[in-house]
Amino acid sequence: MVDNQTTSCDLMVFGALGNLAKRKLFPALFQLDRAGLLAPDNRILAIARRNMTTEQVRDTLREELEAQLGLDDIDDAVFRQFVQRVDYCQLDFNDTEGFSELNGWRTPGNQLIVYMATPPSMYGVIARNLRAQDCCTDRTRVVVEKPIGHDLDSSRVVNDELAEVYHESQLFRIDHYLGKETVQNLIALRFANNLFASQWDQNHISHVEITVAESVGIEGRWGYFDKAGQLRDMIQSHLLQLLCLIAMDPPSDLSADSIRDEKVKVLKALKPITRDMMDQYVVRGQYTAGTSEGRPVPGYLEEEGANRSSSTETFVALKAEIDNWRWAGVPFYIRTGKRLPEKYSQIIIHFKPAPHYIFDPDQKHLANNKLIIRLQPDEGMALKILTKDQGLDKGMRLRQGPLELTFSETFEAERIPDAYERLLWEIMRGNQYLFVRRDEVEHAWRWVDQIIRNWQDSGEPPKRYAAGTWGPVASIAMITRDGRSWYEDI
Amino acid sequence: MVDNQTTSCDLMVFGALGNLAKRKLFPALFQLDRAGLLAPDNRILAIARRNMTTEQVRDTLREELEAQLGLDDIDDAVFRQFVQRVDYCQLDFNDTEGFSELNGWRTPGNQLIVYMATPPSMYGVIARNLRAQDCCTDRTRVVVEKPIGHDLDSSRVVNDELAEVYHESQLFRIDHYLGKETVQNLIALRFANNLFASQWDQNHISHVEITVAESVGIEGRWGYFDKAGQLRDMIQSHLLQLLCLIAMDPPSDLSADSIRDEKVKVLKALKPITRDMMDQYVVRGQYTAGTSEGRPVPGYLEEEGANRSSSTETFVALKAEIDNWRWAGVPFYIRTGKRLPEKYSQIIIHFKPAPHYIFDPDQKHLANNKLIIRLQPDEGMALKILTKDQGLDKGMRLRQGPLELTFSETFEAERIPDAYERLLWEIMRGNQYLFVRRDEVEHAWRWVDQIIRNWQDSGEPPKRYAAGTWGPVASIAMITRDGRSWYEDI
Repeated sequence: MVDNQTTSCDLMVFGALGNLAKRKLFPALFQLDRAGLLAPDNRILAIARRNMTTEQVRDTLREELEAQLGLDDIDDAVFRQFVQRVDYCQLDFNDTEGFSELNGWRTPGNQLIVYMATPPSMYGVIARNLRAQDCCTDRTRVVVEKPIGHDLDSSRVVNDELAEVYHESQLFRIDHYLGKETVQNLIALRFANNLFASQWDQNHISHVEITVAESVGIEGRWGYFDKAGQLRDMIQSHLLQLLCLIAMDPPSDLSADSIRDEKVKVLKALKPITRDMMDQYVVRGQYTAGTSEGRPVPGYLEEEGANRSSSTETFVALKAEIDNWRWAGVPFYIRTGKRLPEKYSQIIIHFKPAPHYIFDPDQKHLANNKLIIRLQPDEGMALKILTKDQGLDKGMRLRQGPLELTFSETFEAERIPDAYERLLWEIMRGNQYLFVRRDEVEHAWRWVDQIIRNWQDSGEPPKRYAAGTWGPVASIAMITRDGRSWYEDI
Repeated sequence: MVDNQTTSCDLMVFGALGNLAKRKLFPALFQLDRAGLLAPDNRILAIARRNMTTEQVRDTLREELEAQLGLDDIDDAVFRQFVQRVDYCQLDFNDTEGFSELNGWRTPGNQLIVYMATPPSMYGVIARNLRAQDCCTDRTRVVVEKPIGHDLDSSRVVNDELAEVYHESQLFRIDHYLGKETVQNLIALRFANNLFASQWDQNHISHVEITVAESVGIEGRWGYFDKAGQLRDMIQSHLLQLLCLIAMDPPSDLSADSIRDEKVKVLKALKPITRDMMDQYVVRGQYTAGTSEGRPVPGYLEEEGANRSSSTETFVALKAEIDNWRWAGVPFYIRTGKRLPEKYSQIIIHFKPAPHYIFDPDQKHLANNKLIIRLQPDEGMALKILTKDQGLDKGMRLRQGPLELTFSETFEAERIPDAYERLLWEIMRGNQYLFVRRDEVEHAWRWVDQIIRNWQDSGEPPKRYAAGTWGPVASIAMITRDGRSWYEDI
């Protein structure tokens, strides 16, 4: 451990007893501590409404860490060191006066980080109350989670509330996909390798696929999900972020704004999907009863708490086009859905075939290289290269042999840090390049809003697909019309 | 086995008791038989001067196969089937009358293949005697081994003698490097993968390395080797063939002449190395005493049978340049030698780095992709790609992770056929694309001859290098002057 790799921080977690904090935040903080990446004087203030003592919170925390991470074998001292960083403060977030307590807790000189693990409706309240108690110096970093609004207008409200108190350079909007190792690796892959950099355009790439498939259904949060739907919940954030990282022009440097400027350019260049394009460009699906991992599961409208007349989509497939010099004519086929046959996320770059083909005519369909970037499971990449099939009697038959790079294998089985570990680490270092800037959020909403408006205007219900299938048949038809298919073999 | 994969052939092997036949030819034929690739009526006529019976030859053959291939566990029936294909004919190759016997052996309708596993000085004699006895129909295929001469003029004599009797389309000149799986794979790799095809030029490649390193010394054939030297023995044939396959323009189809036309274009475009270029472009070495695999070994001039004043080279490093549109400004650094530290052959394509570099300045030297094609040991390829180093505390540090494709692993541990198996199989099928055309031989000699003349004119002795080292220091200096180095990490 060299010293400049740690930053002395005080971390305030609002909503510290909530689901996000429990499932993601504290486990990530614990792993950072365990890896020696938290400074000795890093403190964590858990803040919530519930009436509990610090001791109780520490005990609960430890139980949850053990249960969740399965860390029975960890030295007791490691847990002790971690939970002793944590204090608890009971606070009603609307209670302006109550915020005065927070000042007492702070370590002078430490960087303050305010993590709002709360519903977005609380962001403004918390920010204003912190300001009222003078608990927000210019150095404060503020972390917020999606959703930032449910459309362009409402996102502006949330962002305005934050902007009233904090400068954009203090705001760390999390999209946890940006913390995934493979996603960041896109940057290295694209810009450190001229083999790819020089081919990363419409001259060399025919199309791109992005699939984020979930096998789960609604998991008890029907009401919440139904207000959003898959387009808002997944595409507006995660999938458009992936699209930006794939499509952006090379930034001049790795500074946060150089990268985000390029991402915004992509979002601005997204071809709007007008009403008359909808049939060809967008498929909206909703799962019906089917099977998932071998057992029968109910349809979306039969889930607990469901409103039987909901037309919220649980699946979206769409064809995004980017109207710029680099990508004209290169469709980005995107799909994401719940209750699909398996949980996996991958990006596939389909390179164009060579201009002339001289091998076995039966194999011509193989003749394009593919770069497969797997986000889960097994983060890694594979490059599909054609080689000569090996048997003597095969002549010059081709064979698609992947050049394979699975991170967990290649890097001496090092543990891949969870996205939240990476993101917290970058927040502590004050590096914004993995966080979403306000204009990114807004341009993404602008594009998505138009699709939602088209749906509302048409009044058409979503297309049905049985749980455990790859979405409505129309999703296959959409890509088939272009003479292509969703890539299946992994 | 489908039927069109076998061709009924009669194979006459002249020099059937010699070293090449014993070490390469019969083992390869045996493997083909074992794999079911010889037609049931394929016959083999072993022809040599020695007084032996067919039974004796068959017994010897079987012993040698068992000893060489370590095939104790093979079913007796497999051996029996193979040796029963073999007949022996004692013949003095100068005895024109004696050749009449050969006609009696032939199976009507079978394709005749004449394999001259003899010194090249015999090619003409054998060809004329076969013709005299009317044992050379138009359909006969004739296989000859290098060396075809020891310079351009003498190669013309050999080729003229063969041409007197056979048409070029009947002649199969073996360069066994062309039978190596990885070498053929170069064709698939370059032309079936646009990822490479579109970057295979001076815009994208900075330089190419070809190393064929032998750890052995002279192995009892000092007198033979000393007349040739490493330039004639290795570069004129194997290394220039590799260079051609790397450098050739894409052929319009895979026919033998389309490929060979392109190879000849490369050889014709090789920039002649003139006398005043020699210092910068060519290093000639000769090994002195040193160590090999841990034991002391004598120098070249101290080997058994050595002429102590020989200036024959056992090592050559040179910089070849190709004066054409594709390769202007891209040097091909070539080196080959005996008594080097290890036995390995590899080709390294060094791609140019991206035009702009945005990562850790300390790592800029890593920033070019490399394609490594290993011929031995472990035929395979690796693509050196930069990825993000994985540790949280590493920021955007890069890491050179190879995407690796080792044939023996990838192809379910199938046995890789020996080069001679492939070549014999292609001869039986009448496919000339892996065989060297007359004009290739001659253009290669023309380029090599000039270097030899320059050596003779200068009278300079070869530079010494200790056995077990990577050749004379001048070899390193040659590439270092260009700001590069021989690639060492495999």
